[in-house]
Amino acid sequence: MIVVMEKNATEAQIAHMAQRVQEMGLKSHVIRGIERTVIAAIGDKRGGERESLESGPGVAEVVPILAPYKVASREVKPDPTQIQVLGFRAGAGLVGIMAGPCSVENEEQIIASARAVKAAGATALRGGAFKPRTSPYSFQGMKEDGLKLLALARQETGLAVVTEVMSTEEVGLVAKYADILQIGARNMQNYRLLEAVGNSGKVVLLKRGPSATIEEFLLAAEYILNEGNPNVMLCERGIRTFESHTRFTLPLATVPFLHRKTHLPVIVDPSHGTGHSYLVPDMAVASVAAGADGLIIEVHPNPEKALSDGYQSLDFPQFNDTLQRCAKVAQAIGKTLS
Amino acid sequence: MIVVMEKNATEAQIAHMAQRVQEMGLKSHVIRGIERTVIAAIGDKRGGERESLESGPGVAEVVPILAPYKVASREVKPDPTQIQVLGFRAGAGLVGIMAGPCSVENEEQIIASARAVKAAGATALRGGAFKPRTSPYSFQGMKEDGLKLLALARQETGLAVVTEVMSTEEVGLVAKYADILQIGARNMQNYRLLEAVGNSGKVVLLKRGPSATIEEFLLAAEYILNEGNPNVMLCERGIRTFESHTRFTLPLATVPFLHRKTHLPVIVDPSHGTGHSYLVPDMAVASVAAGADGLIIEVHPNPEKALSDGYQSLDFPQFNDTLQRCAKVAQAIGKTLS
Amino acid sequence: MIVVMEKNATEAQIAHMAQRVQEMGLKSHVIRGIERTVIAAIGDKRGGERESLESGPGVAEVVPILAPYKVASREVKPDPTQIQVLGFRAGAGLVGIMAGPCSVENEEQIIASARAVKAAGATALRGGAFKPRTSPYSFQGMKEDGLKLLALARQETGLAVVTEVMSTEEVGLVAKYADILQIGARNMQNYRLLEAVGNSGKVVLLKRGPSATIEEFLLAAEYILNEGNPNVMLCERGIRTFESHTRFTLPLATVPFLHRKTHLPVIVDPSHGTGHSYLVPDMAVASVAAGADGLIIEVHPNPEKALSDGYQSLDFPQFNDTLQRCAKVAQAIGKTLS
Amino acid sequence: MIVVMEKNATEAQIAHMAQRVQEMGLKSHVIRGIERTVIAAIGDKRGGERESLESGPGVAEVVPILAPYKVASREVKPDPTQIQVLGFRAGAGLVGIMAGPCSVENEEQIIASARAVKAAGATALRGGAFKPRTSPYSFQGMKEDGLKLLALARQETGLAVVTEVMSTEEVGLVAKYADILQIGARNMQNYRLLEAVGNSGKVVLLKRGPSATIEEFLLAAEYILNEGNPNVMLCERGIRTFESHTRFTLPLATVPFLHRKTHLPVIVDPSHGTGHSYLVPDMAVASVAAGADGLIIEVHPNPEKALSDGYQSLDFPQFNDTLQRCAKVAQAIGKTLS
Repeated sequence: MIVVMEKNATEAQIAHMAQRVQEMGLKSHVIRGIERTVIAAIGDKRGGERESLESGPGVAEVVPILAPYKVASREVKPDPTQIQVLGFRAGAGLVGIMAGPCSVENEEQIIASARAVKAAGATALRGGAFKPRTSPYSFQGMKEDGLKLLALARQETGLAVVTEVMSTEEVGLVAKYADILQIGARNMQNYRLLEAVGNSGKVVLLKRGPSATIEEFLLAAEYILNEGNPNVMLCERGIRTFESHTRFTLPLATVPFLHRKTHLPVIVDPSHGTGHSYLVPDMAVASVAAGADGLIIEVHPNPEKALSDGYQSLDFPQFNDTLQRCAKVAQAIGKTLS
Repeated sequence: MIVVMEKNATEAQIAHMAQRVQEMGLKSHVIRGIERTVIAAIGDKRGGERESLESGPGVAEVVPILAPYKVASREVKPDPTQIQVLGFRAGAGLVGIMAGPCSVENEEQIIASARAVKAAGATALRGGAFKPRTSPYSFQGMKEDGLKLLALARQETGLAVVTEVMSTEEVGLVAKYADILQIGARNMQNYRLLEAVGNSGKVVLLKRGPSATIEEFLLAAEYILNEGNPNVMLCERGIRTFESHTRFTLPLATVPFLHRKTHLPVIVDPSHGTGHSYLVPDMAVASVAAGADGLIIEVHPNPEKALSDGYQSLDFPQFNDTLQRCAKVAQAIGKTLS
Repeated sequence: MIVVMEKNATEAQIAHMAQRVQEMGLKSHVIRGIERTVIAAIGDKRGGERESLESGPGVAEVVPILAPYKVASREVKPDPTQIQVLGFRAGAGLVGIMAGPCSVENEEQIIASARAVKAAGATALRGGAFKPRTSPYSFQGMKEDGLKLLALARQETGLAVVTEVMSTEEVGLVAKYADILQIGARNMQNYRLLEAVGNSGKVVLLKRGPSATIEEFLLAAEYILNEGNPNVMLCERGIRTFESHTRFTLPLATVPFLHRKTHLPVIVDPSHGTGHSYLVPDMAVASVAAGADGLIIEVHPNPEKALSDGYQSLDFPQFNDTLQRCAKVAQAIGKTLS
Repeated sequence: MIVVMEKNATEAQIAHMAQRVQEMGLKSHVIRGIERTVIAAIGDKRGGERESLESGPGVAEVVPILAPYKVASREVKPDPTQIQVLGFRAGAGLVGIMAGPCSVENEEQIIASARAVKAAGATALRGGAFKPRTSPYSFQGMKEDGLKLLALARQETGLAVVTEVMSTEEVGLVAKYADILQIGARNMQNYRLLEAVGNSGKVVLLKRGPSATIEEFLLAAEYILNEGNPNVMLCERGIRTFESHTRFTLPLATVPFLHRKTHLPVIVDPSHGTGHSYLVPDMAVASVAAGADGLIIEVHPNPEKALSDGYQSLDFPQFNDTLQRCAKVAQAIGKTLS
C-alpha cells in the first residue's frame, strides 16, 4: 500500500503513520516529494489494513498495490481453468453453451426445450425452479417439481443441468438434482450462500451483480474457492448504467479483462445483458469474438407465452441460427463450441 | 398498461395483441395515432403481464401505468407511518437518530459508544455483530458474542438496538437480542431473508441496494409488508455511479421522492453514503433539511483503530457537534430529533 | 403521447388537460382505467409539448410514443446508408477501417503510421491536429501544421483523412485539409458546431458523448442532417459508468440497437472505449462480430513515446494482427473489411 | 506519481522505467515489495507524463499523487473566494440566490419574473436567450432580443443578470448585456469557449457536465482561471446515473467535497438536478444545509405555459415559500442569503 499524506501533514503525523504501518507487521518506507510525502507499506496484508490507515491523522488517501483476491488470481495459477461436467466444457479454447427457458413451466415445455437446444449444439440446459422475482406478486417458480423435471430432461438428453439456488436452506435440495449451481446477480454478495455452494462440491456459475466492480466479483468467487471448491465459472450478465434502451449494459471488455486477472472461465449472458430478444443474437456472436468461454441464453418454445422473461428469449429457430453464427466466429478465432 | 405497436405493425398483429390483453382479464382499447397504434390495457394486474406482452408480435414497447407495489404505496395509506421502539421514533415530524460503531469489537468499545451517542441525543444504537465483508479475509464480526454486548449496552442506556441480519438461519438469533433488524444493501433482494424478517415481528431497517431503482426498493419493502409486518423503515445509503471521489453517491432527492410515493419513514445513512468522515456532518445536516425521518451514523471511540469502516466514522465530539447542527436545522423546518 | 393523470386527479383537471392537448393541435382521447385516467394525445408533434404537459395540474407523467428524431430514423429511410470517401467505405456490408495516432506529432511519425495502417488494411488515416485536452497544461496539438502533415500523408498513401474539429471557427480550415470531420465526444451537444459541420459538405464522424442516451445521440445527428448533410457516421466510443478497470465502458449492444433505429453507419472506437491497449484487439474483433460498420483505432509507431493516449495505442504489429483477426470474423458473418 | 510494475516485471523493465522517469526531469525511487516493485516518481509534472508512463513495458498502472489543477486548488489559495456583482454575493458565508425562467419569452414574462424573484429575496435573475436544446425542432431562444429584455429587467430591478453563452462567436454579444456568463453542462469541456469567457472579464458560472468527474470539473475551471479570470463559480446541477425517477441525480456531497479541494464558491441547481418542480423546494433547502454558496432556481409566472422546462419550474408563491425555508436553514447554520 501507498499511504499518501496531505500536503500540510506534520512531521508528527508522518512519524505516527509510519509507526502504524509497522504495528501492522509491514515495513514502512517514507518518500518525500516536492509537494507531498508518501509512505510505502511493504508486505502481504489483505484484511482491513487499508481502511484502518485511511482514517489516520494527516492521511489524504491510501492506494492499494496488491489485488485483494488470491486463489482466483492468474498470478497464483497462470493456466486457464477448464470446467467439465457431463458433455459441457468451458475454458481453454472451448466455448460451453448453456440454454433453455427462464423458468421451468411444465414437462412438455422443458423436454421440448432440452431437445431443441441440444439439437442446436448446447451441452447444458438452463431452467429456473426457484425464481428470484423483483415483485412478490410475480410467478416464483415450480420449486422441487421444477428440479425433478430438469433431472428428467437430463435423463432424456444427457445435457448438464444448470439452475439457480437462492438460499442456504435450498443448497442441498438443488444440488441433489442439478449439475451446476447458479448464484444469481442479486445474490453475488450473499456470503452465507457463497460459502454453502463452496461446500456443495458442485460446479458453480457465479453471476456478476449489476453494480459489482471486478474486484468485488473476484472476491465473491474467492469466498467459494476459499471453501475448497475450484470449479467456479464467472458470468457477465450486464451492469446498471444510465442507458435505458437496454435493460442492462453488457460490457464485453469484462471478458478480456477477467482473462488477464483470473484463470477462471468467463461466461456471458446476452439475454439478461440486453433484455431484448432482437439484440441477443448479435451480442452472443460478439461475446464469442471477445473471447468468452461460454454463453448462457434464454430459449423458449413460445416466448410470447413464457411465464417470465419472454421479451428476451429466443425461439428455437432463432437459437439455432444464433449458434451457427457463433460456431463460425469461434472457428475464425481458433476456438470450438462445446 | 399501454402496449405501443411498431410503426409497421399489421392489422393482424394489432388484433392479436388486443386479444392477448383480453385473455389476461384486462379490457383492451385500441387507439390509432398518425404514425402508430397503441392498445390501452385496463384493469389491475401487477404480475408478469408486462413482460409477457413485450414479446408479442409487432410490439415496440409496453408502458406500465400502475405502480407495481401496493401496501407500501401512499395511495393505499395516505398518512405517514411512524415507527416507535423504546425511545426511538421516526416519521411524521420526528427524526430518529441511530448511531454507533460499524462493528461491535468489545465491551468497553460498545458501552462507551452507547453512552456517548445517547448523551449526544441518539435514541438507537447501531453495531454490527454479523458483518458482510467484501473479502473473505476481512474481520467477519463477533457474532452472538456481539449481540450479547449490544443487549448489555441497551440495558445500560435504554437505547434501542439495531443490527444487521445476513441470513435466514440467523433471524431467530438476532431477533432475540435486537430491536430493529437491518437488511444490508447487499441483501436488499435476498427474498428469502425479506420474508423471514417479515415474519419476525421486529421493526426492519431496509437498506437500498447500491443499484436498486426506487421501484425495486419499494418492491423489496413489499416482500416484508406482504408477510404482515408493517414496521419497515427505508434507508438511502448511496448508489453506485461513475463518481469516485466518494465511495457511493448519496442522492438526497430520494427522500422527498419516497415521501411522495410511500407512507414508510425514510432514513439516510451519510456514513456509507459518502465514505469519508469529513463529509458526514454536512450530509447529515442536509439529510435532515431534505426531510429525512431519521439518520444512521457510524461513530467510534477511536476511528483510526476501528476494525472496520474507520475512514467514515465520526469520533464522539464530531458526532455531538453534528447532532447539534442537525437539531437546529430540524427546528428551522418544524421538526424534532428523537 | 400518453398523459398519465394522478390517481386522485379531479374531473376538472382531466378536462383541463384534454383541453390543453387540443390547444396544441393534437386530438385528445380520454381513457378511464380502474385506478387512473390517461389521456392519449394523437398527432405529430416533437417540439416541447411533452415538457409543457408535464407541468399541468393532476399530471403524474407524460409518456412519449413517437421518437423525436426524423431524418436519422430507419422508419423514414429503411435502406442502410453507405459512406464512401476515397477508398474508405462503411455501411451496408462493408466495414471501414480508420487508424492512426491520437495526435499528429511530426512528419516522420504520421507518414510511417499512414504507411503501416494502409499496409495492414486501413482505408482512412486518423490523427489529431486540434486536440481537446482535459487539462490546459497538456499538449494541445500541432494545429494547422498537423493538418498539412495529414494532407501530405494522404498524398503519399491515398488514405482518406479523418481529424477532429473543435470549434466553429476552425471548421473551414479543417475542411480544407480533411475528408472526414470528427466531432469529439465532449462536443456531441455543441449545437453551433453541429450546424457548422452540417454546412461543410464533408462526411462527419459523430462520437457519442460519454453520458448521452441513444435518443440524444440521434438528435445530435439530426442537427447535422437537418442542415442538408446526409453523410453522418455514428461512433460508439464508450460511456461513463461505475466501472473503473476500464476508462469507459464499451456497450456493444449500441451497434445492433442503432441498426434497428437508424440507417446511418455505426462505427466503434475500441481504443477510447477501453482505454487499455491490451483490451483493444479483442474488442475490435467483438465490434465487427456485433455488426459494426467500421472501426477507428489508435496506432502509434512507439506507443510508449506518444505525446497522448499511448496507453491505449497499438503498435504496428499489434494492429496488423488485430486487422487479420477482424477480417476473418467479418468473413465468418458475411462482411468485408474496407 | 507511483509507477506500479507487473508482478513478473523483469529487472530490465524496472531499470528502463526508472530511466524514463528520469528523462522526464523527475527523481525516481525504486521500492521493492514482497510481490511487486513500484517506482516513485518525484517532482512537479502535470502534463501527459502519466499517460506516457502507463504504456511502458512491465507497467501495471500509474497512480497520480498530485492533483492536476493548480489555480483552482485550495492548497494554493486557502481562503474562500467571494463573488460579488451588483447586489449578488456568493461565498464565504453568503448564499447568493439566482432565479428566473428557463427562457426569456417576452417582456411581460421576464419583468414579472424579475420583480417576483427580487421580492422573494433573489439578487440575480436567470433567463436563457441562447438555448441549447437536445432537439433541433425545439424552441431555440429569443437570442439578442432576449438579452435586451434581460438588460431591461436589470434596469427595473437592479438584479444581476446571468445567462448562458453557447459559442465563442456569441461571447462578446452576451457579455455586452449580462453580468454573469453561464457555461452550460453540455459545454463544460468546450475548451475554446472556456478560454473565451476566461478572456471576457465577466463572472462565470460553470456548470458541471452530467458525467464529469470532480477532477475534470476543476480542470475546466482551470481553463478559465488560466486566462487570468479569477471570478468563477462552480455549479452542481446533477449527474447521469441509472436513476430514472429524477431527470438527473443531485449529489450534494459535491458541495463539502469541493469546499475541501477549492476556494471557488459552489452553487447548486436543484431545478435541473431533480427535473421535477415538486422536488425542488426540499432539495433547495438541503443544498443550503450542505453548505452551498448559492442556488440557481427556475421560476416562471405560469409553469404550465412555459416554452421550456415548465415541469421543473416553481411558480412565484412556491419560490417565495422555498426561499423562506432556505433563509431559516441558512440562519440555523450561521449563514445569510444574499
